[in-house]
Amino acid sequence: MTYCLGLYCREGIVLLSDSRSNAGMDNIAVHRKMHVFEAPGDRVICLLSSGNLSLTHTVLELIEEDIQAGKAAHDTRHLMNQPSLFETARYVGSKIREVDKLDRAYLEKDDFRFNIHFLVAGQIGTLPHQIYYIYPQGNIMHADTDSPFLQIGESKYGKPILDRGFTSEMSLRDAVKFGALSMDSTMKSNLSVGPPIDILCYEKDALRVCHQIRLEEGNDYLKTIRQRWSAGLAELAKTMPELEFPVAGE
Amino acid sequence: MTYCLGLYCREGIVLLSDSRSNAGMDNIAVHRKMHVFEAPGDRVICLLSSGNLSLTHTVLELIEEDIQAGKAAHDTRHLMNQPSLFETARYVGSKIREVDKLDRAYLEKDDFRFNIHFLVAGQIGTLPHQIYYIYPQGNIMHADTDSPFLQIGESKYGKPILDRGFTSEMSLRDAVKFGALSMDSTMKSNLSVGPPIDILCYEKDALRVCHQIRLEEGNDYLKTIRQRWSAGLAELAKTMPELEFPVAGE
Repeated sequence: MTYCLGLYCREGIVLLSDSRSNAGMDNIAVHRKMHVFEAPGDRVICLLSSGNLSLTHTVLELIEEDIQAGKAAHDTRHLMNQPSLFETARYVGSKIREVDKLDRAYLEKDDFRFNIHFLVAGQIGTLPHQIYYIYPQGNIMHADTDSPFLQIGESKYGKPILDRGFTSEMSLRDAVKFGALSMDSTMKSNLSVGPPIDILCYEKDALRVCHQIRLEEGNDYLKTIRQRWSAGLAELAKTMPELEFPVAGE
Repeated sequence: MTYCLGLYCREGIVLLSDSRSNAGMDNIAVHRKMHVFEAPGDRVICLLSSGNLSLTHTVLELIEEDIQAGKAAHDTRHLMNQPSLFETARYVGSKIREVDKLDRAYLEKDDFRFNIHFLVAGQIGTLPHQIYYIYPQGNIMHADTDSPFLQIGESKYGKPILDRGFTSEMSLRDAVKFGALSMDSTMKSNLSVGPPIDILCYEKDALRVCHQIRLEEGNDYLKTIRQRWSAGLAELAKTMPELEFPVAGE
């Protein structure tokens, strides 16, 4: 399973992804799901992926092929020369559609779903920063201040904490905390989501990646928030008022 | 959608169910999903149901038919004359298998899944109290002190809070709080789960229902825990330590 999360803030963007991949419980591996492309001063593009690993890998290979082709022929359309983040997201969608043509029919013959989702986040030049959600059909949507987070993969366990407290107005430092708690909740309830955890915190208008970290299994920060959040939640639950039942019968 | 929850405690059992039913977002109704059968001094049996409403209704009608038949003929096997809760759960499973024979093929012709789950909870005489989970295939499993809660329906949003803090050792009063918070988290993140909320709190060896309540939409207790839990969580999240990113480049 996979959990990737994009938090849209007025001050920038926070992105998180786990790295566990499994084909059955007896086949578990580590695969990076966050891919950062940077042209400092011009643009930062970050891709997060979930779904069938062969599909996401093929999309990433096709994207890389185009980037390499672009070095030889300047009119080649590729990930890093689109005029806007919207066009960049549409470009990633077009690569998903290429893989659809390559592989979907063969997968479906053996009852595998064409399961692939991407988040495309970042900023280009003086345009606003943004996060896009790319569907398996290649169509897209984006975050906004009313719906300031986007999730792909195992999204449900990590949603309640975001629904309760995350807003696009909060500082990037606080958004990182909410993202880490959402990730921790997902790892706690679904063992097929796990470390290393990649976290990127992008300050708007930086046009370069300044804050990025990979937290390995057993990392102190992960352990600390796991312990403090669990203890705090259990304590908080007990401070809730008692439910008064009506007196029965008689 | 539906959310039903059974909490197994050493002191007894806490059960919760929502009452919202929908066939598409434009067809929403209220249906009770908690059904209590009581023979004071002898046994308390509570059924919680999720899935296709026509299937769960048919199971409940068949169960009621058997109870009525039992009044005429004492050797009729029915819900309230089984020697143990295990046999009671197996009996409910046998009713699901009857409905399978009646309806499954017709549903599947139109691509409806045979979707039906039950929880069967309670106590009979001097036997231990217990909660059983009944699958659509009619087979069963039960809760225990290692896995002290069972959920049916929309289970993921309400699981994190239980994973963090609920144990079978806690008092029934605290278990009610955890159950209410789990229900509230589910309602917050999935609008197709909603009030009235039925809550039953069974003290072991009571062999009668003493604590049962229905909380309607807008109920003060529901509003209070929604507000205090949301505020408390947001506050708690901000007390988490800040993540220190490594200093970039140079």
